[in-house]
Amino acid sequence: MVEIERGILAKNDAYAADNRALFARAGITAVNMLSSPGSGKTTLLVATLRALAGARPVAVIEGDQQTANDAERIRATGTPAVQINTGKGCHLDAHMVGHALERLPLPLGGLLFVENVGNLVCPAGFDLGEGRRVVLLSVTEGEDKPLKYPDVFATADLVLITKTDLAPHLDVDWAAMEAALDRVNPRAARLRVSARTGEGLDAWLAWLGEG
Amino acid sequence: MVEIERGILAKNDAYAADNRALFARAGITAVNMLSSPGSGKTTLLVATLRALAGARPVAVIEGDQQTANDAERIRATGTPAVQINTGKGCHLDAHMVGHALERLPLPLGGLLFVENVGNLVCPAGFDLGEGRRVVLLSVTEGEDKPLKYPDVFATADLVLITKTDLAPHLDVDWAAMEAALDRVNPRAARLRVSARTGEGLDAWLAWLGEG
Repeated sequence: MVEIERGILAKNDAYAADNRALFARAGITAVNMLSSPGSGKTTLLVATLRALAGARPVAVIEGDQQTANDAERIRATGTPAVQINTGKGCHLDAHMVGHALERLPLPLGGLLFVENVGNLVCPAGFDLGEGRRVVLLSVTEGEDKPLKYPDVFATADLVLITKTDLAPHLDVDWAAMEAALDRVNPRAARLRVSARTGEGLDAWLAWLGEG
Repeated sequence: MVEIERGILAKNDAYAADNRALFARAGITAVNMLSSPGSGKTTLLVATLRALAGARPVAVIEGDQQTANDAERIRATGTPAVQINTGKGCHLDAHMVGHALERLPLPLGGLLFVENVGNLVCPAGFDLGEGRRVVLLSVTEGEDKPLKYPDVFATADLVLITKTDLAPHLDVDWAAMEAALDRVNPRAARLRVSARTGEGLDAWLAWLGEG
């Protein structure tokens, strides 16, 4: 099984290198977004696209086991989006992303958001060719998630703590959350955001180079 | 890959049959609990164990990629618990559960809770030998999760809508949630619970045969 896994990852890495070369040629910043199901990836993306308001070219690739709901929500903002359904699969891979890119107007000199399947385990090992990796953690999920699912948090360039508007209704132990992140990934930037109230959106746009 | 997958599932099913035979001999009701990370499985279990208060023998098997946090939270209630760490794996399998059973005092004539790895994709296809399967969906996760992750919801005997205490702070579309569940699993029982306020706990205990 380990050998099969290594083979799959080696194949994926080759496709990821192709995607990365394409992004470099086209001046595209590709952002791979990962989290649990329901952490607010699509809602944050919709708020982000509205805030960008066409300032630079943007496109979105959406991953889900089933449905095209998320791509439809993105398209409603006027942004081109392609939905990938993974069926029995629990993550996107670089090959799927390469095919999706053929069906999208490339956002030359702009941003490509790739919203991965909602999953804190499987997507961690699969490089999609992205330039930046963002992991979302909703305040409702509990402070210990980085410790329980360390692989995905360890690969993040940025950890976005989402749904901060709900924090007053929870017993969020911020110190425990920060300590958990320190332990698995002291290097990653961290921002607290709420797509509902707009808290932290400016800092998130600045991190994307759009501030 | 499909053949390898079939082979893995066939092997798992054989171990699951062994577990199921053991549960039958020992009069154990085994409950497999599945959800996203952070939907409140452990918190609900802790509230459940406190409510049962030793009325019948109970034991717990905890699954996580890393840490023994959850087994420790369970043991603090006085209930025996074994932690399984899946490492790179995204679900428990029947073989792991069989080994964990060797390390637990069997709850003869009682209840065994198996808390699966937080994941809405991978655990769906793996029978652990359980008698009942419960899928949790937190109100914070969004109404469309059953449509996006249909496999896991389709196998549920009961869907527990959790964290209902947070509903007043969200825009939960209950009709959309019910419609999504109707579409993927019209047969499953449904209960709304809050471990924080105690809402629905009596109905949950009654469903377990402990009301």
